[in-house]
Amino acid sequence: MEDKILLNHGNGGKDTQLLLQRLIFSKLPLELKRTEGGVGIDYPDDGAVINNNIVITTDSHTVYPYFFPGGSIGTLSISGTLNDLIMMGARPIAMLDSIVVGEGFPMADLDKIIEDMLSLLKELKIPLVGGDFKVVPSESMRGIIINTVGIGIAEYPIVDKIEDGDSIIVTGPIGVHGAVIAAIQYGIDTSIKSDVKPLIGLLDLFKEFGKEIHAARDPTRGGLAATLNEWAQLSGKMIIIEEGKIPIPEEVRSITDIIGLDPLVLANEGVAVLSVPSTKENEVMEKLKKLGFEPSVIGKVIEPKNKENKNLVVVKTEIGGAKILEMPTGEIVPRIC
Amino acid sequence: MEDKILLNHGNGGKDTQLLLQRLIFSKLPLELKRTEGGVGIDYPDDGAVINNNIVITTDSHTVYPYFFPGGSIGTLSISGTLNDLIMMGARPIAMLDSIVVGEGFPMADLDKIIEDMLSLLKELKIPLVGGDFKVVPSESMRGIIINTVGIGIAEYPIVDKIEDGDSIIVTGPIGVHGAVIAAIQYGIDTSIKSDVKPLIGLLDLFKEFGKEIHAARDPTRGGLAATLNEWAQLSGKMIIIEEGKIPIPEEVRSITDIIGLDPLVLANEGVAVLSVPSTKENEVMEKLKKLGFEPSVIGKVIEPKNKENKNLVVVKTEIGGAKILEMPTGEIVPRIC
Repeated sequence: MEDKILLNHGNGGKDTQLLLQRLIFSKLPLELKRTEGGVGIDYPDDGAVINNNIVITTDSHTVYPYFFPGGSIGTLSISGTLNDLIMMGARPIAMLDSIVVGEGFPMADLDKIIEDMLSLLKELKIPLVGGDFKVVPSESMRGIIINTVGIGIAEYPIVDKIEDGDSIIVTGPIGVHGAVIAAIQYGIDTSIKSDVKPLIGLLDLFKEFGKEIHAARDPTRGGLAATLNEWAQLSGKMIIIEEGKIPIPEEVRSITDIIGLDPLVLANEGVAVLSVPSTKENEVMEKLKKLGFEPSVIGKVIEPKNKENKNLVVVKTEIGGAKILEMPTGEIVPRIC
Repeated sequence: MEDKILLNHGNGGKDTQLLLQRLIFSKLPLELKRTEGGVGIDYPDDGAVINNNIVITTDSHTVYPYFFPGGSIGTLSISGTLNDLIMMGARPIAMLDSIVVGEGFPMADLDKIIEDMLSLLKELKIPLVGGDFKVVPSESMRGIIINTVGIGIAEYPIVDKIEDGDSIIVTGPIGVHGAVIAAIQYGIDTSIKSDVKPLIGLLDLFKEFGKEIHAARDPTRGGLAATLNEWAQLSGKMIIIEEGKIPIPEEVRSITDIIGLDPLVLANEGVAVLSVPSTKENEVMEKLKKLGFEPSVIGKVIEPKNKENKNLVVVKTEIGGAKILEMPTGEIVPRIC
């Protein structure tokens, strides 16, 4: 065990899981990991469910740079938290924000970042009901960290549980946000813009399909690889993905080729992954297109015959091979969300 | 207007109020500052009320040093947020935490800080239902920031509203936490310990006295000066405090004398200020003593005859003089909570 915290401990993948398991989860009895009958840290989902139908979620946003093509840490902090609510089938009813800035942070940047936050809240008519604001000396922090809290009502509760025979659908191109941030951090020229946006339209899908949506997640930190692995682990099922069907834009691929990253570990900030019964696949795809998404079916869930295949995510390559898609480990691109 | 964020912008007093008013509050219509019928950022209280009786509050804790006599940033992050719920008359039902650490942070310190958080949660049987964990590169942040979210049920709702004839009561010695942190930051030897603790016992008081508790607040950042000024501003009343009745420990006074601070602007982390009808003063004092507090009546609320005295907090000195207690401005002791 390391004696210092390293960047990989915050990768949102296996290293984060193991650290939190050791420092937090293993030390709390089940009744202190959730409210009675609720969903808490005993179940790794996008948010917690308390008091029957209240969903609550929180995220600290540390992305650098603060401004990037397609958005800012402000856009991200609102969208990311709203998406966590939406992925639980919850209609957002209120938000809180907590901003920590380093002394010397440019006032104009703070103003612009907050404007980005407020304009999304205004567009979606979600009230900001509380918050906090702190300034820390420049020697201990540069930049800005924005924590957001989202509260929603679980109108169409989704507690992720993939089932044998499900189809795995993504609602849009994969890897875009992560690629944009990586390109800036590595100094690569690119014309693509982050996909960051609230996925509020999906509530219409959930309304129509209800319990047929077995799982929904926005694959942010750790990307598609982290989400699919969590689902496989939670269910004991096996997920088989067809590489050729994953919609990865050419520009994302050129960036990941240069820096040697797998697009499947890159964060997405405006895409959902869904697990639905294959019998409903066509209807769900049609509805998603009507809602303005560009969805793709990328794979399926099976009940593995072989015990060793439980909890596995396998990617079938276009040339007929197969490889295991691991839960991300080590440093991913730092501060991606 | 400054073009950079300065430490005073985070003082929790007038400078913070003005900045947030300009950047956030002034840009949102009332219906986006609270949920319908709820309490939000339109009303500066300890937490927000949504959905009738759900209270939610969030705070980012940035105190340095992380460990101090009497507690740690872990103890503080749980106590501070619980106290915000309790001050709204809400019984805490769940918490979430979001930890951001700089790369290189000592693992043993993180472990100890989290232990401090968990031991309070276990003692009070409050579940930790969700959270986030991020690591940022050492060049942009050293240390640790802990954001906590508290959710409670407003069993005895208190929306601060002081009234003519109220008595102002503090539940314990004033200025202790702030003095401890200031002593460390300025290298002053002292034997006092921070008062940091959850004020859960006060729920019994609120149960007994209900609507007779006109206002309750834990005077953290900005101290008693900030709380009393907010109350005076919210109500249009005048608050008169008797300096000789404020319980300020000798050790706090020696620290504030050395560094030239007013104890009334120092943060408290285990003390509440209450505003109750003078007719109930004795009963409330008795109950507080039974609950183990060391309360003092420090002043009263009056309806000023003179318009100029509206919103004012006045301190009557022991030698018969009077001075205005201002909302704190400028840099207070940095990162006090």
